[in-house]
Amino acid sequence: MVHGRGMSEGTSAKTVRLARGDAPGRPPMTPELDRLYDRLEDELLVPLWTEIGELMPESPRPDAVPHRWAWRALLEMARQAGDLVPVGRGGERRALALANPGLGGRPFVTPTLWAAVQYLNPREDAPVHRHTQNAFRFVIEGEGVWTVVNGDPVAMRRGDFLPQAGWNWHGHRNTSDAPMAWLDGLDIPFSYAIDSAFFEFGAEDVGTEETPERSRSERLWAHPGLRPLTRLGPSPATPLLAYRWEYTDRALADQLALEAEGCAVTPEPGHAAVRYTNPSTGGDVLSTVRAEFHRLAPDTATASRREVGSSVYQVFDGRALVTVGAASWRVERGDLFAVPSWQPLRIETEHGIDLFRFADTPIYERLDKDRVAVAEQEGTR
Amino acid sequence: MVHGRGMSEGTSAKTVRLARGDAPGRPPMTPELDRLYDRLEDELLVPLWTEIGELMPESPRPDAVPHRWAWRALLEMARQAGDLVPVGRGGERRALALANPGLGGRPFVTPTLWAAVQYLNPREDAPVHRHTQNAFRFVIEGEGVWTVVNGDPVAMRRGDFLPQAGWNWHGHRNTSDAPMAWLDGLDIPFSYAIDSAFFEFGAEDVGTEETPERSRSERLWAHPGLRPLTRLGPSPATPLLAYRWEYTDRALADQLALEAEGCAVTPEPGHAAVRYTNPSTGGDVLSTVRAEFHRLAPDTATASRREVGSSVYQVFDGRALVTVGAASWRVERGDLFAVPSWQPLRIETEHGIDLFRFADTPIYERLDKDRVAVAEQEGTR
Amino acid sequence: MVHGRGMSEGTSAKTVRLARGDAPGRPPMTPELDRLYDRLEDELLVPLWTEIGELMPESPRPDAVPHRWAWRALLEMARQAGDLVPVGRGGERRALALANPGLGGRPFVTPTLWAAVQYLNPREDAPVHRHTQNAFRFVIEGEGVWTVVNGDPVAMRRGDFLPQAGWNWHGHRNTSDAPMAWLDGLDIPFSYAIDSAFFEFGAEDVGTEETPERSRSERLWAHPGLRPLTRLGPSPATPLLAYRWEYTDRALADQLALEAEGCAVTPEPGHAAVRYTNPSTGGDVLSTVRAEFHRLAPDTATASRREVGSSVYQVFDGRALVTVGAASWRVERGDLFAVPSWQPLRIETEHGIDLFRFADTPIYERLDKDRVAVAEQEGTR
Amino acid sequence: MVHGRGMSEGTSAKTVRLARGDAPGRPPMTPELDRLYDRLEDELLVPLWTEIGELMPESPRPDAVPHRWAWRALLEMARQAGDLVPVGRGGERRALALANPGLGGRPFVTPTLWAAVQYLNPREDAPVHRHTQNAFRFVIEGEGVWTVVNGDPVAMRRGDFLPQAGWNWHGHRNTSDAPMAWLDGLDIPFSYAIDSAFFEFGAEDVGTEETPERSRSERLWAHPGLRPLTRLGPSPATPLLAYRWEYTDRALADQLALEAEGCAVTPEPGHAAVRYTNPSTGGDVLSTVRAEFHRLAPDTATASRREVGSSVYQVFDGRALVTVGAASWRVERGDLFAVPSWQPLRIETEHGIDLFRFADTPIYERLDKDRVAVAEQEGTR
Repeated sequence: MVHGRGMSEGTSAKTVRLARGDAPGRPPMTPELDRLYDRLEDELLVPLWTEIGELMPESPRPDAVPHRWAWRALLEMARQAGDLVPVGRGGERRALALANPGLGGRPFVTPTLWAAVQYLNPREDAPVHRHTQNAFRFVIEGEGVWTVVNGDPVAMRRGDFLPQAGWNWHGHRNTSDAPMAWLDGLDIPFSYAIDSAFFEFGAEDVGTEETPERSRSERLWAHPGLRPLTRLGPSPATPLLAYRWEYTDRALADQLALEAEGCAVTPEPGHAAVRYTNPSTGGDVLSTVRAEFHRLAPDTATASRREVGSSVYQVFDGRALVTVGAASWRVERGDLFAVPSWQPLRIETEHGIDLFRFADTPIYERLDKDRVAVAEQEGTR
Repeated sequence: MVHGRGMSEGTSAKTVRLARGDAPGRPPMTPELDRLYDRLEDELLVPLWTEIGELMPESPRPDAVPHRWAWRALLEMARQAGDLVPVGRGGERRALALANPGLGGRPFVTPTLWAAVQYLNPREDAPVHRHTQNAFRFVIEGEGVWTVVNGDPVAMRRGDFLPQAGWNWHGHRNTSDAPMAWLDGLDIPFSYAIDSAFFEFGAEDVGTEETPERSRSERLWAHPGLRPLTRLGPSPATPLLAYRWEYTDRALADQLALEAEGCAVTPEPGHAAVRYTNPSTGGDVLSTVRAEFHRLAPDTATASRREVGSSVYQVFDGRALVTVGAASWRVERGDLFAVPSWQPLRIETEHGIDLFRFADTPIYERLDKDRVAVAEQEGTR
Repeated sequence: MVHGRGMSEGTSAKTVRLARGDAPGRPPMTPELDRLYDRLEDELLVPLWTEIGELMPESPRPDAVPHRWAWRALLEMARQAGDLVPVGRGGERRALALANPGLGGRPFVTPTLWAAVQYLNPREDAPVHRHTQNAFRFVIEGEGVWTVVNGDPVAMRRGDFLPQAGWNWHGHRNTSDAPMAWLDGLDIPFSYAIDSAFFEFGAEDVGTEETPERSRSERLWAHPGLRPLTRLGPSPATPLLAYRWEYTDRALADQLALEAEGCAVTPEPGHAAVRYTNPSTGGDVLSTVRAEFHRLAPDTATASRREVGSSVYQVFDGRALVTVGAASWRVERGDLFAVPSWQPLRIETEHGIDLFRFADTPIYERLDKDRVAVAEQEGTR
Repeated sequence: MVHGRGMSEGTSAKTVRLARGDAPGRPPMTPELDRLYDRLEDELLVPLWTEIGELMPESPRPDAVPHRWAWRALLEMARQAGDLVPVGRGGERRALALANPGLGGRPFVTPTLWAAVQYLNPREDAPVHRHTQNAFRFVIEGEGVWTVVNGDPVAMRRGDFLPQAGWNWHGHRNTSDAPMAWLDGLDIPFSYAIDSAFFEFGAEDVGTEETPERSRSERLWAHPGLRPLTRLGPSPATPLLAYRWEYTDRALADQLALEAEGCAVTPEPGHAAVRYTNPSTGGDVLSTVRAEFHRLAPDTATASRREVGSSVYQVFDGRALVTVGAASWRVERGDLFAVPSWQPLRIETEHGIDLFRFADTPIYERLDKDRVAVAEQEGTR
């Protein structure tokens, strides 16, 4: 059931209902206490001693659960939606969001993150809008779509990561004769939880017929270590709108080659990893979303690792055995999986894997709530 | 009903249930679409087009509602709890939390903030623990309690603000023959929403018999503009554990006097205000909680003001007419009220008022999600 | 001889004259090399190999030397200047600057710092001007002068530290019937070395007859941990214009008392120290000048300590034996001494001493050129 | 004459010699004043009123003057030095430093900056050392030399910019059969003025026979917007040791093309410019040195611009008419010119020019002493 807001309004029943059973830390029920509880309910008060176990656990106990979605099924349903559901003003996007089974049916892949497959038919447009939620796209396959951000058309191609910070106008255009699907990531659930969302409709039309190889943003910003003299201040979100696969692939290959030459540049043996960063600060691309790419060599196992905060992975290529808490899956190209807060994650490969990752870690780091624990390294399998 | 986590687990019903009715932006239902929706539910997928209106509103639509709690009633129930409920390990604190009527009965004064009245009987102790949630105490009346933070006993007296950042050991001791009540503020709901909570039990005993006038923290840090040479790095949370009323009162009086002399030092005519800050950085005292004190002169009205994020006020002295969105109350000493995100707030005085305020604004500012709108100033009544 | 700028201009002699003698690292002189050197001189070129020893030493080899100035003599000459030299437009201030004997007679106490005794006769004014050089005043004795900064009159009294960042209008007024002398510290030599100085004349008159106990700046900012809601941004220099002796004295006394209670709050046994800081950032009061106050208990010895960068101390009270490099002096109330870069400093007391210190360390820290070395602690004498 | 340090020591003459002539702001000389001046000289004191005009001018009056060095002559003398002067321990480098004619013959191109032509013969090495001075190399022509930084061999080729922060071990090796010359830039004069220099000898041998196309540093860091997961903290100086010409050239070409398409991306019409930045922060590559590359289209004129701080330009290609204050030169490939603080600079092209620039501006910006003034734009010629 998709939980709606404000459902308690209009009911004659009490809003507050106290737990009156016995439990550790709670006083035994007496008639006097029962009457006090009645009155607390009337006055909209809740004792700490009935709630502390849930609200203040010894370590995070997320409702969200580890879960994997198979790309094959996602894509098939996206295609069906392509046949049945038009894209236009109001619905805005043909996007199917992953609903973590622990989160009550809401379209939240974790308590803070949104992950959806978006699908555009040939020659189809998604209309222009803007919102304060931070967003990105990651392309698992295909090409032919341009996302137009503040009038700058940005090509989307396999392996590309395309961040787009809140409150920028954007629409999408499929200029090709083939449909295209990709991953959308946003901080919608977080923004919803903290009541920070603003939204505005823009033009129906994406407003440009240009389909350049490189966006204006890339022509200004995608030169390593160079910045334009007219753009010298720190920008809160990245001004670079496309991180092309050729660079990501090369950076990962370089790391593994350097490791082979004896340089300590990888986080773990056989595990190369880069973070997508804002070239104006060196920090995360978006204020609430971290994005990374990981490559595991064949016959590699990561250490078991817990982080406060949640993340989502999509397999870009290859296969692996993934273990998150008590769950374990074999994953392959396009598959997505969710890692809730403080759940241990371990990945083991036989033939190697390439993984895109996004996470809500900037929220925790900027608020001094981040914490990481890595189990003793067990090394290569 | 206090909503428990993980309630969807173990039910045979579907977790995802899509809204199939007609609504703006949604495609008309057809048998094919109905079958696709069935399949999406099975595969834990939710279309954006059925959810966008709620998740991505034009401006924040909080579930939390404006609400006021009367101090008189709060204190009376705290006293009853003092008679009926012991303080000790497990329950940890005799605290009654304000439950916003829009938030389903959970002990959340807003979606991010916790506000509770804590009550200690004469000669009573609250045991030592620590947690990652940030906390503070504000004292509306009384004295005789020392909060002991990492072994440093800090006196609590009327008008004092006592911040205490996450993961510091703390217990409380009432050394007097009178009971004492105060306001506890924490980021428990936020910490819960993002699954970041850690908790540890400490000693049963607060561990010191000292009852100094000034804590060690104050002796090191409460000298304006001076810092010890052994404490030069920036500290993420304030190292100063008590902000005494005498300084707050004087700062406010000085501002109004300066205004009367023609200096532009107040945010609005007749409205003096200070923020409690971390002397090691000049920033907020806690990474997720802002605290301020406001003084309105007699016959003053504030401009109507909206902020993204929520806040809670407690009347320290005086009276006022407060309007939050569609709600309006006359408030007096000790009363508390909640201001949800983006709800316009306006305060009007006849005889003047002193107000303590706390808010979750650092969350939004650090994540580039803050926004403020002030209506055209209507001036003094 | 006070070295003037541009002295090489207009001379017929060559500007560049190469060292042609033998020295380690230099090639032996030959007729060909001699001709090359002639040509290099003509073309305004200098080989590294003739200069490297001086320019790139193994550790700093300052021209400035350790030196002490006796307060008694300084004050006597300031009084004579009071009789002989008027204060007014053009000369601007009756100030006698300490000239480090290693710096060629220029009025530079170190290569970066200016230290001068300023002297005002009864009822005398120093006219208003502003300059980009950062400045402060420290009062060794007396009262009755107000420094007026941007129209805000700030009382000057024994023990007060009064920073005043570059480009603020300021004049001084002696409202009493006694003369007054104080220490002026500025970054004039540094500003001169890097050609960054701007200067503007203001009014002849300081422009206010007010002589308040507390300046407006203090009424806004001298409340520990509190800042006005109208002054929330970081200010590059401190907005607090007076750091009163009562607070400094109490902070130091508190540190020694805490140390006696077993708390690790002092940099060394028997050595209390505070840094004057900008309440809007927690950092140094001025971008180029650090200021501190140190109190050594009786029978205390500091560890021998070297820092990159130079500093100047003034004895506020008490006596000590001071050793800087090869120099050693007994110092007493009012005496000043200069510590050049990387010279080891050690202070030993019999009856205790109070010391004001200022230094150029922010320059090094902000440019990643700071370095400190502390000799093995030899403890209390 | 190259001015040596400590020259005043050992002379019997007075160190301080006061200016006793009449001048604006100075009191008229009297016998009493003359005696006071004698005594001030003895006591190492200098009045402000005799010095203020020079030390506190209305705007910067640098000793350094605008000057141009012709590349043809520089290279010829470097070649002669190649024949006559060996490279080895002690002299360390075969480098000819530009001596600004206003700076008394010292090898300082400006009061803060060092610029030198370094020259290596075929198969020659420059031995390993490290120093706290920040350095870079810029290659005007040739290839075949590798600079080895902490064991990482970095190829040097025409158009490359190679920063190298203080205290890193480095040596150079010419692996080719041709000599090679390049520009060295350092903050030697600044480091000398503030007494912050440390130096250590390393191995005679550069320690590696590797001559890779790309250094390890580039393989880790030269991927736009990507950073290794093992290098996430901010690094005070850039971890990227080579900024290749192909990227610089493309960034400049892109800017001019974007300008032609109507995008506001250039600082002035026909003037493209990039700053070399630290990918870990987005800030300057070195804490004291800024480096940029400018391209002016044909028939372009820059606005006349003044900056506090000094800079040096080298023509990479093309020609222009350059005006700095009262000086004016036609410059061509390889020529260098110095722009002292606050001197207006204007560049006019007929056929276009490519210019490398370095400057000391980070010193001023980090110390809040930066200031810029741009004359009304006169547009394209």
